[in-house]
Amino acid sequence: MATFSCPVNSFFFRCCYGSSSNGNHGDYRVNINVNGNASAGPFKHHALVNEISLKNTSLASIQFLGNGHISEEKIRQRIPTKKQFVDPNRQGLIVERGVGYRQKVVIRSYEVGVDKTASLETLLNLFQETALNHVWMSGLLSNGFGATHGMMKNNLIWVVSRMHVQVDHYPIWGEVIELDTWVGASGKNGMRRDWTIRSQATGITYARATSTWVMMNEQTRRLSKMPDEVRGEISPWFIEKQAIKEAVPEKIVKLDDKAKYVNSDLKPKRSDLDMNHHVNNVKYVNWMLETIPDRFLECNQLSSIILEYRRECGSSDLVQSLCQPDEDEILFTNGMVQQNLLKNNVLGMVGGNGRPLDMNTVTYGYTHLLRTKGETRNEEMVRGRTRWKPKI
Amino acid sequence: MATFSCPVNSFFFRCCYGSSSNGNHGDYRVNINVNGNASAGPFKHHALVNEISLKNTSLASIQFLGNGHISEEKIRQRIPTKKQFVDPNRQGLIVERGVGYRQKVVIRSYEVGVDKTASLETLLNLFQETALNHVWMSGLLSNGFGATHGMMKNNLIWVVSRMHVQVDHYPIWGEVIELDTWVGASGKNGMRRDWTIRSQATGITYARATSTWVMMNEQTRRLSKMPDEVRGEISPWFIEKQAIKEAVPEKIVKLDDKAKYVNSDLKPKRSDLDMNHHVNNVKYVNWMLETIPDRFLECNQLSSIILEYRRECGSSDLVQSLCQPDEDEILFTNGMVQQNLLKNNVLGMVGGNGRPLDMNTVTYGYTHLLRTKGETRNEEMVRGRTRWKPKI
Repeated sequence: MATFSCPVNSFFFRCCYGSSSNGNHGDYRVNINVNGNASAGPFKHHALVNEISLKNTSLASIQFLGNGHISEEKIRQRIPTKKQFVDPNRQGLIVERGVGYRQKVVIRSYEVGVDKTASLETLLNLFQETALNHVWMSGLLSNGFGATHGMMKNNLIWVVSRMHVQVDHYPIWGEVIELDTWVGASGKNGMRRDWTIRSQATGITYARATSTWVMMNEQTRRLSKMPDEVRGEISPWFIEKQAIKEAVPEKIVKLDDKAKYVNSDLKPKRSDLDMNHHVNNVKYVNWMLETIPDRFLECNQLSSIILEYRRECGSSDLVQSLCQPDEDEILFTNGMVQQNLLKNNVLGMVGGNGRPLDMNTVTYGYTHLLRTKGETRNEEMVRGRTRWKPKI
Repeated sequence: MATFSCPVNSFFFRCCYGSSSNGNHGDYRVNINVNGNASAGPFKHHALVNEISLKNTSLASIQFLGNGHISEEKIRQRIPTKKQFVDPNRQGLIVERGVGYRQKVVIRSYEVGVDKTASLETLLNLFQETALNHVWMSGLLSNGFGATHGMMKNNLIWVVSRMHVQVDHYPIWGEVIELDTWVGASGKNGMRRDWTIRSQATGITYARATSTWVMMNEQTRRLSKMPDEVRGEISPWFIEKQAIKEAVPEKIVKLDDKAKYVNSDLKPKRSDLDMNHHVNNVKYVNWMLETIPDRFLECNQLSSIILEYRRECGSSDLVQSLCQPDEDEILFTNGMVQQNLLKNNVLGMVGGNGRPLDMNTVTYGYTHLLRTKGETRNEEMVRGRTRWKPKI
């Protein structure tokens, strides 16, 4: 179960920071300036309203203050207060009989790594972005990070408890992809959010992801039931479809000091913080992946990752990343598997179970743990499990 | 002068890596797979071509191989071979009488920092992206990082020698901005590339940038004259307009061991590398800014940065970031200037020159140096100068 903070739908990217050892957690609300002060910002509001009126036929999404003024932030953000079906700026539209969201995205030059394919970090960022844009389109968005109006009223935030991503192919620089995202029920009080990534040119689905969310009271830090008011807001958006069907979710063992690879003294930097003053969760995943040896990363690509969130880490916490390889690590390093597969010499290689390696199914696993290094004891933050396949 | 590698127009983001102490520099070409091997990738090419033919009326941008097949990468990237005037996927269009480029961008949730505004890193990334998309639209793009066909033929790459960015306002999360970029002549053998960032909602220009580029032979690592063939390709795109008018460019002093702040033992990580196997230049800027004390960054925002590039760093180099504050650093730290400005108590504060501080013009400067730490001597990589203004 998640015991750390992660606001709604914005998924698994803002997580720790703001907590402290005495349990006095930080403020997770995004301050939307409803009483914008004209003198504080660079804009003259009267002039702005006129300018926008000229430029846009619909001002439905802009809220006016009691004094007839409009806050600078609202003019610049224009969060809709009613359901939208199309957003030409975001290249997004509502699909799936009015409840799913689809967005077109071009993979940018700085979003790819050395092999010219989008990094896992890029995919995770795009999941966060489309989830937020889905809530944006719904007209339910009450603050910058995805809480609904009913949640704000009840002081509730979303926390992610689990995330599972499967990647068959990575999009390349310049490729146009379509991301679909939707939500569904998860038990009585939870929500599932799923995604798919598809290539526009080929129609092939490259990646699938699913995540589970529960609600937490922002002040008490306790998990909460879903209030009827909130259920009323979000349940009309629930659909049954699942991006990844998991009969029995894989159990992730808890690593200890005997783990083969350990990175210690990891510390969040200022630039790791997002607009909720949390360490962005992509940072977590990077901490996990950076523990795997470079020579393995050079010849293998991640095909799946499962993350189980346990607690948030404080801004001043020192973090340890532990990593334990499955058997046969040497086979997947230094390109040995690749060379053998290319030579069609597959039958000549056997895995740890004595069976021959098969080019189409051969994958390799690592188990991960991020924990805080306390003075008296260590505390679990995230357990992870990654699977990899050879780059051919 | 630049003596490190930076490919064309892609501007100042891929710079070091690939060089070594014996002068044997890495390969800077992006391998575009012209002889795509159907068996290597996940796609069936015949089926794909049919699928694309059905989906798209124009196949002008896709090149067929001698055997009638089409490379997988080309299908997925679709780099145009002729000038395009509009790209609906990138939300880009050709402006300025056919030679400038404009692109609409929405600031994404993961591109903003703790104060909900886009980071400098985000702006620099968007400069790179729009520069590349400008070349993309021109039909001149011969490889993934911006070299023209004539440059590829002559084994030339672009290297950036200078960059100057001015930021009046930072865009906020969800804000729609328009980036304009264009190129011009710089001396006999150089090129200037400029940018502006404008808010779509308000029409206000938020940021301006200019950069200077020269050509380098990829093998010899020597600067090169611009061949007539290349001048013929790019000079029709030159215009005179300048985003920033600099009568006399500011001289940046070279720091030494006496600098007040020093971060040592900085080392590029695998995830810092881009598709040219270089450390992405945003990393350079981050190394500079992370040397400034947190308490200063909390109450001030960057209003300008000038970067002078001297040499690339190798993948195994250890880097030192030096930083020297101007006088009066204490005034700009801990919110003292802000508090006084807010109280309209401006006349009560004087700067180091004995003159009162003025709310509209008060800025503060740091000088920066990134250098490699060699065994026998240190070598300059980048000199920098940043100016800051109080966050109000």
